[in-house]
Amino acid sequence: MPLNPDAVGSMGEPTEVSWTSKDALLYAVGIGAGTDELAFTTENTDGVEQQVFPTFPVVIGWGRGSALGSIGSFNPALLVHGQQSVTLHRPIPVEGTAVLQQEVTGMYDKGKAAVVTTATRATLDGEPLYTNTASMFIRGEGGWGGDRGPSGPQNVPPDRSPDHSVTYRTSPDQALVYRLSGDRNPLHSDPAFAAMGGFDRPILHGLCTYGFTGRALLHTLCDGDPAKFGHVEGRFTSPVLPGEALTVDMWEIGDGESVFVTRVDDRPVIDQGLLRHG
Amino acid sequence: MPLNPDAVGSMGEPTEVSWTSKDALLYAVGIGAGTDELAFTTENTDGVEQQVFPTFPVVIGWGRGSALGSIGSFNPALLVHGQQSVTLHRPIPVEGTAVLQQEVTGMYDKGKAAVVTTATRATLDGEPLYTNTASMFIRGEGGWGGDRGPSGPQNVPPDRSPDHSVTYRTSPDQALVYRLSGDRNPLHSDPAFAAMGGFDRPILHGLCTYGFTGRALLHTLCDGDPAKFGHVEGRFTSPVLPGEALTVDMWEIGDGESVFVTRVDDRPVIDQGLLRHG
Repeated sequence: MPLNPDAVGSMGEPTEVSWTSKDALLYAVGIGAGTDELAFTTENTDGVEQQVFPTFPVVIGWGRGSALGSIGSFNPALLVHGQQSVTLHRPIPVEGTAVLQQEVTGMYDKGKAAVVTTATRATLDGEPLYTNTASMFIRGEGGWGGDRGPSGPQNVPPDRSPDHSVTYRTSPDQALVYRLSGDRNPLHSDPAFAAMGGFDRPILHGLCTYGFTGRALLHTLCDGDPAKFGHVEGRFTSPVLPGEALTVDMWEIGDGESVFVTRVDDRPVIDQGLLRHG
Repeated sequence: MPLNPDAVGSMGEPTEVSWTSKDALLYAVGIGAGTDELAFTTENTDGVEQQVFPTFPVVIGWGRGSALGSIGSFNPALLVHGQQSVTLHRPIPVEGTAVLQQEVTGMYDKGKAAVVTTATRATLDGEPLYTNTASMFIRGEGGWGGDRGPSGPQNVPPDRSPDHSVTYRTSPDQALVYRLSGDRNPLHSDPAFAAMGGFDRPILHGLCTYGFTGRALLHTLCDGDPAKFGHVEGRFTSPVLPGEALTVDMWEIGDGESVFVTRVDDRPVIDQGLLRHG
């Protein structure tokens, strides 16, 4: 059964989601934060107020409130996460209850694949808290003669060396910690399952790489202050294996914007990256 | 105000405590388990049933149901964890609700210090599940002319090289993950707090070292099967810094018993160790 392109505009159910200080701490260690980042990894360090990483919204309410039920049936094994953005309307409190609602914002026909885009808007006490957007690339779908959608590179780095580069090494067990924040897909833990997907061993969650990237951006371009971190976006281009080192190259392009690429050695793993910062 | 030696026999309130599969997974990564131990670090690996590390009872219901309120007042900063044992009456299920009750089983007068021992017994569906015992060494107490209690070395290794030695390296961030299983004492995370205790930097939780030790014992002497892990005991002798490597030396002494010492290089950190195994 093909996808239903008329699903654009469909809304998921408004869904109440809660998180605790412990959830924020667990996410922090899941994306590699450590003893140099006690504002994010502890709640009781003297003189230090707990803060929440700006990319935490990607795990809040994990798997709940999805609007994808409306788009028709497809093989989830052929779905790949394409782009992801997080826009913070204000910093995420260390604990809270928000209401999120997801919308199918676009369905594009790439011929032998489809791209589906969503926006998830979260409110806290009736006021906007964050908006996540994501695009999913679904192989084997498409072909309904629809719009191919936007294309061409975005957020291209200027033709000069990066203004900043930060390298963090992931641990061999990184995915086993990260998955406790919600995404239990065995692609990231079960060797036999990963082999069925064509991987020599389980791969790191793309959103874990995204979190490492957000840490580098926060500390380098926002003075470590989540209030200065307004918006991040990027595109997943290559899987990462737990244990690999991630280097985030950043270029400040003015007007509170920077573009970035995250790479493993010379292999880009997130490209077309943009940060809007204070 | 001194301690009250008549508190021996005092019972804490029976306390209902619950744990989830996620709690067991979080404990597993907190004691360093990784991709070679998917039965303990994942719940959805094909063909692998989730299991629970036998030392998990030391964090179940952390801080609840204590009987120590009856022993009088003392300076908690002068309390040091001495010995710890865990006896499993059956393997711990991956999730459950147990009732635990703690008893003050002994108070000993060392002159310039006191030793207080406790036993915590847990039942599941009315049947014994596990029993933990612990001893606390409290400097600045004692002197009431009471019994000095048992002394002299126990579980002394035979005069030969160990039958088995296993080394695990802790990570620099180990305490930040382990603490999410319950013990948020800033001695293990806040550099200024640790400095007040005379440490150059935060030290690892003794019970985290204990968990690493239990992993080594389980995999080496119990075929990785918690059902073969009957009882473990040991004495904390020296602090461990996150990032240090722990070596567990084991001697099989027959009759389903082995003795062990855990060390960092040549420095014992848990000694007088005994495992009863199937």
